[in-house]
Amino acid sequence: MFIQTLDILGTIAFAISGVLVAMSKRMDAFGVFIIAFVTAVGGGTLRDVLIGTTPVFWMKDMTFMAVIAISAFVAVVFRNELKHLRKSLFLFDTIGIGLYTVIGIEKGLNAELHPTICITLGTISACFGGVIRDILCNEIPVIFRKEIYATACIVGGLVYFLLREFTGDINSIFLIAGGVVIMVRLLAVIFKIRLPSLYKKKQKSKG
Amino acid sequence: MFIQTLDILGTIAFAISGVLVAMSKRMDAFGVFIIAFVTAVGGGTLRDVLIGTTPVFWMKDMTFMAVIAISAFVAVVFRNELKHLRKSLFLFDTIGIGLYTVIGIEKGLNAELHPTICITLGTISACFGGVIRDILCNEIPVIFRKEIYATACIVGGLVYFLLREFTGDINSIFLIAGGVVIMVRLLAVIFKIRLPSLYKKKQKSKG
Amino acid sequence: MFIQTLDILGTIAFAISGVLVAMSKRMDAFGVFIIAFVTAVGGGTLRDVLIGTTPVFWMKDMTFMAVIAISAFVAVVFRNELKHLRKSLFLFDTIGIGLYTVIGIEKGLNAELHPTICITLGTISACFGGVIRDILCNEIPVIFRKEIYATACIVGGLVYFLLREFTGDINSIFLIAGGVVIMVRLLAVIFKIRLPSLYKKKQKSKG
Repeated sequence: MFIQTLDILGTIAFAISGVLVAMSKRMDAFGVFIIAFVTAVGGGTLRDVLIGTTPVFWMKDMTFMAVIAISAFVAVVFRNELKHLRKSLFLFDTIGIGLYTVIGIEKGLNAELHPTICITLGTISACFGGVIRDILCNEIPVIFRKEIYATACIVGGLVYFLLREFTGDINSIFLIAGGVVIMVRLLAVIFKIRLPSLYKKKQKSKG
Repeated sequence: MFIQTLDILGTIAFAISGVLVAMSKRMDAFGVFIIAFVTAVGGGTLRDVLIGTTPVFWMKDMTFMAVIAISAFVAVVFRNELKHLRKSLFLFDTIGIGLYTVIGIEKGLNAELHPTICITLGTISACFGGVIRDILCNEIPVIFRKEIYATACIVGGLVYFLLREFTGDINSIFLIAGGVVIMVRLLAVIFKIRLPSLYKKKQKSKG
Repeated sequence: MFIQTLDILGTIAFAISGVLVAMSKRMDAFGVFIIAFVTAVGGGTLRDVLIGTTPVFWMKDMTFMAVIAISAFVAVVFRNELKHLRKSLFLFDTIGIGLYTVIGIEKGLNAELHPTICITLGTISACFGGVIRDILCNEIPVIFRKEIYATACIVGGLVYFLLREFTGDINSIFLIAGGVVIMVRLLAVIFKIRLPSLYKKKQKSKG
């Protein structure tokens, strides 16, 4: 019940982030809804297709479609106010990737897959919606350009399997691992931590 | 039989529209065929993958591959003449989305999915081929930028389920709902109807 | 055993080619790994999803993940040396498409699909990883712009089914058909053979 509530919060956050990107591209109402939808369910859909759990999740539970439609509608109506809410949105988005990571891992465990694959599935669930959103908007996916994002999912996934060695209490594992994802992401953004660059810096040598 | 003929007409229309876009990007012969193929079967393929009806439809019925190959070949040979046929092509393309919408809805019903999901599947079948075509050609998908397109599919889908309340005659429902998709699209283009804009106009304020 | 070794060689080659493209886009370490991964397994993944053999292959055999992680790591560390190895890489990549083509065909045969579909699956397995790589890097896929590439896969596929008429020795067929793919590609590159252009040349008429 608690988890389901969080799942819906994550869906809302992702849908709203989709609306914001789509509107910055001046898409029409339909385009905005599609991008919201794809951002919210894209990761979980790819996960389900790769495992073979079809029809995919949002086809079997109408809650997702309804939540996304309402979120997109509200986001469009209050688009000017949303600009002042960027920080809360960032929080929602971060909660979203935390939850989706753990949900993805559990789906992988149900399909009896190797822990590495489960963590991959969690990361796909959390990040792929944003990747499709960026592809459809014709940009290099943000996930490949920006600070700690998928890395947070992977760290949370490792914690998940570490905890499983010590306890069988699924709910605690769920909350702690999801919390780790959220914390890693928050700390990375607050302290502007990035992955170490693979490239030599050129820009500053000019001065 | 009648429906199958229309299905093939739709496939031909989509394949030709793929050829025209690919050639405007100066792709080689193989690229042109691939884009034609993907435009024609992309929507139905995604639909089948999401529902889990695999191997996907064009793997089980060789008609599609043959029809697309011949259409692409003819379209390449007569490419100069095709420019004068834009209007007939537009008609074919519109017939195509009408048919694909209804076929998608029926696949959804066979999988016992919720009406909303069925309409979504119909819209995906009709529109996604064009989306993949545009992504492969590195453009923002036309569906997100242009006039009534997917909206026509959704309206047709609503009519489909409305009719089902009154009659059990599948063939009539098929024809009427498909016809509505086609008519909405035609009227929208003829009268230049667009979705209401979400954005304030800036351009004209200059004068 | 022999085939498995070759399969891993192909995976390594594709992973390295992914690293090189991702680094030319100045992606971070995570982005580089993802692109390497997607380039190496993308084609086979799409093949498995379209046929319905899920969970897809790399979820059931951890070798692939390990091989790709190590390849990507080594490629990043020795990135400067790799520039001098472009020719060996090209060879690996070509061996890769040869192998993936035949493996794809055999998966299609196992699913009892029509020869044309099997050849299509082989070509998808061999080429689609590169297509996704290019889409994620926001470029028109190289396969649509460059010389003989997928065409080599198709020729090899035709040889595969021709040989099946004369012999039942799967290993010989595998090696010869794969070899044909490799040879066609090598010859095409060495002699700069391209598909006949569909377009009139404009550039040289100026002089």
